[in-house]
Amino acid sequence: MAGPSAVSEMATRLNLVPDVELAARMFDELRERSRDGEGVTREAYGPGERMAHALARREAEALGLEVSADPVGNLYMTLPGRDRAAPRVLLGSHLDSVPNGGNYDGAAGVLAGLAAVSGLKRAGFTPGRDIVVMATRAEEAGAWFPTSYPGSRGALGRLKPEELQVRRQDSGRTLAEHMREEGFDPDFAARGERVLTPENTAAFLELHIEQGPVLDAERIPVAIVTGIPGSRRLRQGRVLGEYNHSGGTPRRYRRDAAIALAELAVALDEEWALLEARGHTLVVTFCTLATTAEAGFTKIPGEATFMLDVRSVNPASVDAIFAALARKVPEIEARRGVRFDLGAETGSLASPMDAGLRAALARAAEAAGVRHREMASGGGHDAAAFGAAGIPAAMLFVRNQNGSHNPHEAMRMEDFAEACAVVTHWLAEAAG
Amino acid sequence: MAGPSAVSEMATRLNLVPDVELAARMFDELRERSRDGEGVTREAYGPGERMAHALARREAEALGLEVSADPVGNLYMTLPGRDRAAPRVLLGSHLDSVPNGGNYDGAAGVLAGLAAVSGLKRAGFTPGRDIVVMATRAEEAGAWFPTSYPGSRGALGRLKPEELQVRRQDSGRTLAEHMREEGFDPDFAARGERVLTPENTAAFLELHIEQGPVLDAERIPVAIVTGIPGSRRLRQGRVLGEYNHSGGTPRRYRRDAAIALAELAVALDEEWALLEARGHTLVVTFCTLATTAEAGFTKIPGEATFMLDVRSVNPASVDAIFAALARKVPEIEARRGVRFDLGAETGSLASPMDAGLRAALARAAEAAGVRHREMASGGGHDAAAFGAAGIPAAMLFVRNQNGSHNPHEAMRMEDFAEACAVVTHWLAEAAG
Repeated sequence: MAGPSAVSEMATRLNLVPDVELAARMFDELRERSRDGEGVTREAYGPGERMAHALARREAEALGLEVSADPVGNLYMTLPGRDRAAPRVLLGSHLDSVPNGGNYDGAAGVLAGLAAVSGLKRAGFTPGRDIVVMATRAEEAGAWFPTSYPGSRGALGRLKPEELQVRRQDSGRTLAEHMREEGFDPDFAARGERVLTPENTAAFLELHIEQGPVLDAERIPVAIVTGIPGSRRLRQGRVLGEYNHSGGTPRRYRRDAAIALAELAVALDEEWALLEARGHTLVVTFCTLATTAEAGFTKIPGEATFMLDVRSVNPASVDAIFAALARKVPEIEARRGVRFDLGAETGSLASPMDAGLRAALARAAEAAGVRHREMASGGGHDAAAFGAAGIPAAMLFVRNQNGSHNPHEAMRMEDFAEACAVVTHWLAEAAG
Repeated sequence: MAGPSAVSEMATRLNLVPDVELAARMFDELRERSRDGEGVTREAYGPGERMAHALARREAEALGLEVSADPVGNLYMTLPGRDRAAPRVLLGSHLDSVPNGGNYDGAAGVLAGLAAVSGLKRAGFTPGRDIVVMATRAEEAGAWFPTSYPGSRGALGRLKPEELQVRRQDSGRTLAEHMREEGFDPDFAARGERVLTPENTAAFLELHIEQGPVLDAERIPVAIVTGIPGSRRLRQGRVLGEYNHSGGTPRRYRRDAAIALAELAVALDEEWALLEARGHTLVVTFCTLATTAEAGFTKIPGEATFMLDVRSVNPASVDAIFAALARKVPEIEARRGVRFDLGAETGSLASPMDAGLRAALARAAEAAGVRHREMASGGGHDAAAFGAAGIPAAMLFVRNQNGSHNPHEAMRMEDFAEACAVVTHWLAEAAG
């Protein structure tokens, strides 16, 4: 294994400079062609994602890469290596977006792959093994299909047949129907067949915007991700009390659903602060918390609803919040005369990133002279699906502004260029 | 002044039994003619209230009472006394309802007046002074016109000209326009002229359902009201934070509007409990408390809204909650990076009930053999407007089930009959 100085020397000798101009041009065209008000909309297995995949295919063909799609619609853009039989090095991300979202969430990972591969080609670098840039499908589960990573998991043989029957939230049609409409074959996934295996794939690297403010606040352009959090989620929580006259009902006769919910939210927020003070890293969010349409002035709220999202790389941290929830709910119910209906729980397993890849990325960053830190991911990413399928997976975060999943999402091209330099150095080692 | 035994003897001698059958028949017809789904709707200065006033007028005329309406539409049904120049004894309530509300809130007070007067007439009782049953207008301010007691205050010369320009929440037309449509003269109120004064009115008694669960829980049919609470209200409160990715934004970078609002709600609820423990009587209600339409899964709420309603007969109790609010808001703002926009504050002054009338009602209840207790009102009532105008005012609460302002509002006729017996005994003394 080459040390940082060896990698650096090789990259310098070969003049391995990522083709950031290509990525910049593609970001502009993507934004222009999926513009939706102030932001962009690229529907999963719909017109926006279709446009983005066609654009990537066109650019990859112009670069002379081998291009193919798998039966569930993921796109592969391959720079052939000397040993075509050796396990490939895979890198990429998704091209869909949330409705009226930003231009960088997802696209940055695919465009970074093409920028790096274009740079390698331009330098006349032939890798030892195939380098494959992958554009996955339908990663934005919260916005389109209520299931995690159906594109990458479809390629990994890990999509359950029933998950093909989930419905896109806007169209009401199933994932299978949408796949067929785009010309793909959901039966491949239903049969559990696989395109990508630990035998044919050596590593998966996903570059992504951070989606949070940490790198920006700490003035660091790049992070190496330690892991992708698992989650436990309540999407349909309700509190049932009783509507009563707000003037005529003394405290001890009330069954106020809203104050009961507020008390639960504050209790879990305090538990979170306590866990952080003990060294846990997690996030706890009441994404919604609301009285219902029947509420109004001079009424005590008889019903309230909520969505709770708890995430951590460490399952014990998530479980600690749910343990507090389990303690607190009956206590509040008894004291306030309300009933909590938590609804179905959904969630995902945490996925630690591969230690060897993390070390290799740190070497590549050192070699490229790029300042970096380690951090846990906040959101879920396709890389989690690869990790779960036994393929070594890693992620690089790029500093960005204004969060993500909103039209104001921003990323500076100089930060993107620094991250692409790390990717290029890493490819030179990993596929060299 | 006659003692309980004297009143009792007189009532017994005269066989003063309220005509509860009349009231029962009128409740049925009112319900039938204003039915709206499971409940009733009697629009203020609209078809429902118009129907109810016409029905009361018809029955009063059938009883041989003198009937008239004032320039703002209140109805007066008079049993003439021996001394027509003596200050009248007034009793009544309102005939409008909230949309899809119950049949008893308001109507019970007017029908109790007619039942009592019918009983007096039937017994051949001629009062010393006029007894006037009054049906006011538009008492349900929260539902129709956003101003308090425009009907009774219009008769009392206490409606401000600008209040005639408030708009009915469903029609969008002004109070003055609605008054004119019903054939009345808003200019009378605009000029500050008065129908009712402390000189021509000796007392106002309002019988009303309790609207709360206390009498039902304590198995007492009737309460004598100590006072009508004043209020301080925020109807358009907002909390402004920042929408961010719920996974990608660590605790210290969050500006979560919902958890900030939940914390305020819990803090004021704790302050309420503390004040109660110290002997204060008040109610504190977040009638609404909600993230907004932009909130959704995987987002930290960037905005939340609320309505706060604080009431007490004792202004110091209300002010103590607002003092806690004023302490807590900047503290939460600083700690959570949010901003509270409390919006305009509205409210009303507390109105203690007349001590002499309360004592007289207690004597009447004793004389009628009706179990009773004292209690503060929860809601606001027309009686507060009379008290504020310097006319001695009092209220009787009747036990009811299922609260009020909802279709399931209920009142047992045997409880109503007990309350009517108290009213009859009181009239025998007050106007005897």
